[in-house]
Amino acid sequence: MSDPGFASLPEPPYYAVIFSSRRSDRDEAGYGAMAQRMVELVSRQPGFLGAESTRGADGFGITVAYFESEEAIRQWRQNAEHTAAREQGRRDWYDHFELRVAKVERAYGWDRAEPL
Amino acid sequence: MSDPGFASLPEPPYYAVIFSSRRSDRDEAGYGAMAQRMVELVSRQPGFLGAESTRGADGFGITVAYFESEEAIRQWRQNAEHTAAREQGRRDWYDHFELRVAKVERAYGWDRAEPL
Repeated sequence: MSDPGFASLPEPPYYAVIFSSRRSDRDEAGYGAMAQRMVELVSRQPGFLGAESTRGADGFGITVAYFESEEAIRQWRQNAEHTAAREQGRRDWYDHFELRVAKVERAYGWDRAEPL
Repeated sequence: MSDPGFASLPEPPYYAVIFSSRRSDRDEAGYGAMAQRMVELVSRQPGFLGAESTRGADGFGITVAYFESEEAIRQWRQNAEHTAAREQGRRDWYDHFELRVAKVERAYGWDRAEPL
């Protein structure tokens, strides 16, 4: 698949961290820099498989990050820079968020260029 | 929680259908009407718990729909109008999509107005 918006993932099972959020109207530049830094950082996290992320003009966004195991999620959660970013998220960047951790059991994809 | 972008869900476990997609540049009006109709239709599906959805200006979107059980997902998949919409999605509306079915094991939320 060539579209860089999609994560290239192995066959299930693996884990998904589904993070939905409403941005505050504050600090767009700081938020953007942090989001980019978190992508760099999680990409070096052992057990990280990939992520997909989008946000609409209304400030509502969904990021889904995929990991090999619960243990990899736990380690990412304990990363000190990630922990600091979460704290600043509550302080400045988000008005509301929901986080759900799920085990992916099956997956299916389709591409217009390779429909079969 | 008062923000209508977020689904109000029971305590886990429940199931998530994570649908990420790249829109084609075709038929924005038809796509919008279908998307609204699918929201109406799935809301009447037994076992449907709620959904969250967003799409960025680049056409990349993520929708996560939550269901009580695998059986509820199976029934929604067999809905005739939904099946026709999926077929038109491949024909007209999407260039690429990925669908992942996952069992939500734990969940956590935060709101600025109720931080504790």
